[in-house]
Amino acid sequence: MSPRYPAPEIKDLPDDIRAKVLEVQEKAGFVPQVFLALARRPAEWRAFFAYHDALMVPESVGRESGLTKGEREMIVTTTSASNKGLYCVLADGAILRIYEKNPLVADQVAVNHRKADISPRQRAMLDFALKVCQHSDEIEDADFAALHAHGFSDEDIWDIAAITAFFGLSNRMASFSNMMPNPEFYLMGRVPKPKPSA
Amino acid sequence: MSPRYPAPEIKDLPDDIRAKVLEVQEKAGFVPQVFLALARRPAEWRAFFAYHDALMVPESVGRESGLTKGEREMIVTTTSASNKGLYCVLADGAILRIYEKNPLVADQVAVNHRKADISPRQRAMLDFALKVCQHSDEIEDADFAALHAHGFSDEDIWDIAAITAFFGLSNRMASFSNMMPNPEFYLMGRVPKPKPSA
Amino acid sequence: MSPRYPAPEIKDLPDDIRAKVLEVQEKAGFVPQVFLALARRPAEWRAFFAYHDALMVPESVGRESGLTKGEREMIVTTTSASNKGLYCVLADGAILRIYEKNPLVADQVAVNHRKADISPRQRAMLDFALKVCQHSDEIEDADFAALHAHGFSDEDIWDIAAITAFFGLSNRMASFSNMMPNPEFYLMGRVPKPKPSA
Amino acid sequence: MSPRYPAPEIKDLPDDIRAKVLEVQEKAGFVPQVFLALARRPAEWRAFFAYHDALMVPESVGRESGLTKGEREMIVTTTSASNKGLYCVLADGAILRIYEKNPLVADQVAVNHRKADISPRQRAMLDFALKVCQHSDEIEDADFAALHAHGFSDEDIWDIAAITAFFGLSNRMASFSNMMPNPEFYLMGRVPKPKPSA
Amino acid sequence: MSPRYPAPEIKDLPDDIRAKVLEVQEKAGFVPQVFLALARRPAEWRAFFAYHDALMVPESVGRESGLTKGEREMIVTTTSASNKGLYCVLADGAILRIYEKNPLVADQVAVNHRKADISPRQRAMLDFALKVCQHSDEIEDADFAALHAHGFSDEDIWDIAAITAFFGLSNRMASFSNMMPNPEFYLMGRVPKPKPSA
Amino acid sequence: MSPRYPAPEIKDLPDDIRAKVLEVQEKAGFVPQVFLALARRPAEWRAFFAYHDALMVPESVGRESGLTKGEREMIVTTTSASNKGLYCVLADGAILRIYEKNPLVADQVAVNHRKADISPRQRAMLDFALKVCQHSDEIEDADFAALHAHGFSDEDIWDIAAITAFFGLSNRMASFSNMMPNPEFYLMGRVPKPKPSA
Repeated sequence: MSPRYPAPEIKDLPDDIRAKVLEVQEKAGFVPQVFLALARRPAEWRAFFAYHDALMVPESVGRESGLTKGEREMIVTTTSASNKGLYCVLADGAILRIYEKNPLVADQVAVNHRKADISPRQRAMLDFALKVCQHSDEIEDADFAALHAHGFSDEDIWDIAAITAFFGLSNRMASFSNMMPNPEFYLMGRVPKPKPSA
Repeated sequence: MSPRYPAPEIKDLPDDIRAKVLEVQEKAGFVPQVFLALARRPAEWRAFFAYHDALMVPESVGRESGLTKGEREMIVTTTSASNKGLYCVLADGAILRIYEKNPLVADQVAVNHRKADISPRQRAMLDFALKVCQHSDEIEDADFAALHAHGFSDEDIWDIAAITAFFGLSNRMASFSNMMPNPEFYLMGRVPKPKPSA
Repeated sequence: MSPRYPAPEIKDLPDDIRAKVLEVQEKAGFVPQVFLALARRPAEWRAFFAYHDALMVPESVGRESGLTKGEREMIVTTTSASNKGLYCVLADGAILRIYEKNPLVADQVAVNHRKADISPRQRAMLDFALKVCQHSDEIEDADFAALHAHGFSDEDIWDIAAITAFFGLSNRMASFSNMMPNPEFYLMGRVPKPKPSA
Repeated sequence: MSPRYPAPEIKDLPDDIRAKVLEVQEKAGFVPQVFLALARRPAEWRAFFAYHDALMVPESVGRESGLTKGEREMIVTTTSASNKGLYCVLADGAILRIYEKNPLVADQVAVNHRKADISPRQRAMLDFALKVCQHSDEIEDADFAALHAHGFSDEDIWDIAAITAFFGLSNRMASFSNMMPNPEFYLMGRVPKPKPSA
Repeated sequence: MSPRYPAPEIKDLPDDIRAKVLEVQEKAGFVPQVFLALARRPAEWRAFFAYHDALMVPESVGRESGLTKGEREMIVTTTSASNKGLYCVLADGAILRIYEKNPLVADQVAVNHRKADISPRQRAMLDFALKVCQHSDEIEDADFAALHAHGFSDEDIWDIAAITAFFGLSNRMASFSNMMPNPEFYLMGRVPKPKPSA
Repeated sequence: MSPRYPAPEIKDLPDDIRAKVLEVQEKAGFVPQVFLALARRPAEWRAFFAYHDALMVPESVGRESGLTKGEREMIVTTTSASNKGLYCVLADGAILRIYEKNPLVADQVAVNHRKADISPRQRAMLDFALKVCQHSDEIEDADFAALHAHGFSDEDIWDIAAITAFFGLSNRMASFSNMMPNPEFYLMGRVPKPKPSA
């Protein structure tokens, strides 16, 4: 599809957004497309990333989560694959590989989480996430009980559901607007990070 | 289901959130449940309502939209019904009746938007919204062309998609956490608003 | 859609049909559209309403039912929503509100019966009805056992299935022929019935 | 499944029902199970067969139809297969073979009507019937236009839809109550009818 | 559809294929269409029938199977009906009737295996086959346990899965290429085989 | 899941199978799991790989194909993702990257072929393959016409359909038997092949 919604130039961004974009670029070595693609509407950009950080970086809002960083990305990768959301499967799958120090898990959960080399606890977590993704209207007490049996608290379950719900929004925005993942994501976490030369 | 995620008391809310809650209560005569239910996590509450306002009250972020207030609520009601999201069908359906000054349209689009007494332009808008809701991965150029034919701009189409995506998040949060619509919503917009007694 | 199948005038109806139409009009204050829309084929009209009454007014055929009047309408409203049958969701939802003296229940079961304020017995009844509606080929002994556990007899279960099946017919007839619910239905049972002025 | 709903004995039937049962037995050589299975509730039996005859034997109610007898049974066989309704696929498939003097067509439309040796007009008729069967809420003007192009009138289309809707009821009743087709149906219309010996 | 992929003449077949075709013709009295339709690509023909025989005639490859000949055909008929594969439903349904000496079972499992007069063991076998057919990604240990409970070994389960998978291939080839079942199949196994006249 | 179907040791394989396995090992540097997993049933192994080569290596059977090697793997990767067949998505996705000299395309078609950087001709090819994969019963003349418009011949279309059908078999076998892709596949074609040290 044509570039219907062109991303703004970094130099034209509002100060707060430009600062964050440059910070990410410094850290990752490139600017993930989502940071630019949504910036054409600054108010939505700010809400989107505030929501993202509240869920994915809980310590940034003074909160702890019973989910690990890797588990959060596992939820994103699995449910985004269910939504056929190319951007998030590639981008969050890359981060999942890095967090879990596991070059295989992202492809496994994206294709079929039932076949992935993950713990029973993580399998239960993903079963629940997929139910929220696909049939949230059918969530019942029994679904909570299944997670409690693996040690998840109700706050952890809120995290699973909210991450799934938020990336369902993200998947829809990326798909409709034709947001394409940066080429860098495809290889991230599959090979050792190149060391800076002396 | 049990009250797994009890809402905080108004008096215990952070100042900014309490101020908004009291403002809404003043205006509506009651506090819609969503304002309290999400407040147990203030950072998420702030991001949620910032996102909501950026999309549903575009003038609040200095933006104009080609969609009317009623059309935005029509999108919410229709896609929430597709998600079987009880809270939003009832709450936004009520607001839709008021904005459109039409006591019938909310029930019609909730049950079957194809049978609703709406304009061909609105029908096309809802067809697109439902595709974003159900099959966002299949959105293609032809879907944009169908909307252009009814005078929607690409910015309007972004609005349709983003509202659908945002309330998809909202529906999932409400369903999983068992958020129930306030009884007041069921009748709003069906009968003339009671006049204050002298 | 255009009025492809115009309803006959009351004065042109066969005597027995006109008598029933006038009786309904006397009682309800208006003629529900289904009584007129089907009357263009008198033999089908007579079979339809004979079937309707045998199921929905069991005492009219000398039979008792373990389902209450409200429960029967609850089945119709829920399964018609699954069929996206606008006419019956609105018309029978209105009657459901009246019978149950509950202005909220019809909207709840129409959007998501799992979230409705109904008894566990009624929830089981609606689960079964939806299975008959959507996957009747998969009904098995276990489905009967689940209802027996709530005190339903096999005759009650026949009632649930037959009401679901009959309104599946009704939903299809109304949808294909574009039968629209009378405006009066939207408000019925939501506000106290206006008392005749002195 | 167990015989949860045993059929009454012929001798115990009300007079009008027994007369019809004996008439059918005389004509067919056996009593199709549906005539007995539904007779345990006489009022429903009478409505069911009145409806059936109004649609399937239009001349019995003083009406002509643009559909042939074989086409009507073709609709029943095809849509009952979609509903996985064993009784009607077998019983009406048998009658279809006889009416069409074609031993192959019933199996073809039951498995995949797209592969059947039928006319383009009949193919269009079955496409419409299956849409009424599966997605009646999506029927639109374009569906009528497709049938008009093959010479179907709006009255013929009512016939297609009503037959589909009625047998949708029948399929659900037969499946839930475990009504099994008589063994005679399996062979009917596949081999020449045995001639009475002299 | 047009004869897009015409079958070769028997006389033009490679020797090994022609020999097999003539052998089948000798035995069955006609050449089932699949033997000719696939012969236009001899290498695929050879692989197809080698695979077929390895699964359906295990003794031909020096293997025993815990499934009877009839059970294997029951799997084919049931899963082919799920794939709406006309050729195999008719051809293998015919063979099923013969092997089981049961003129009713093929139609029953093709329409709804839950209603068929088969043993609980066979019902479990078909449940598993349909899951492999429709949702092979969801097969889990519990599915194996359900079959073990009926005495199936893991090798038997491999047979069920492999037969289902192979005929899934066959159904797709037949449907896409418009392979039509020979008329002889429709009646086979329904009436006694005609005896050769003296 | 447990290793229900353990693969035989290479030394225990029949000569012809061992020879092929060693040849593959020599070429690839490892033995892809499918070569061992299926070898426990030699007759099925031989038929499987004969079929595979007839379709995927057409020159091995003296045939030319209008599809490139990369296009054939593109079909496998896309349809295997639709079947959630982990083994083939990983294994054939790796080969696709190598043949197309494109490290991105395999992930793109696996997640959403509509978003992949492929030619319109390849998009049409994959649309058809997915229809054969998911709804082969609905293939019609119009589907062939769409491919003819992109220059595909009927023989090319046979290739697309047959590859899809064959890997549908392969996906089901791998999923049910829990065949896991070799770790080597995950990285193949993403980074330059390591050069043999001097």
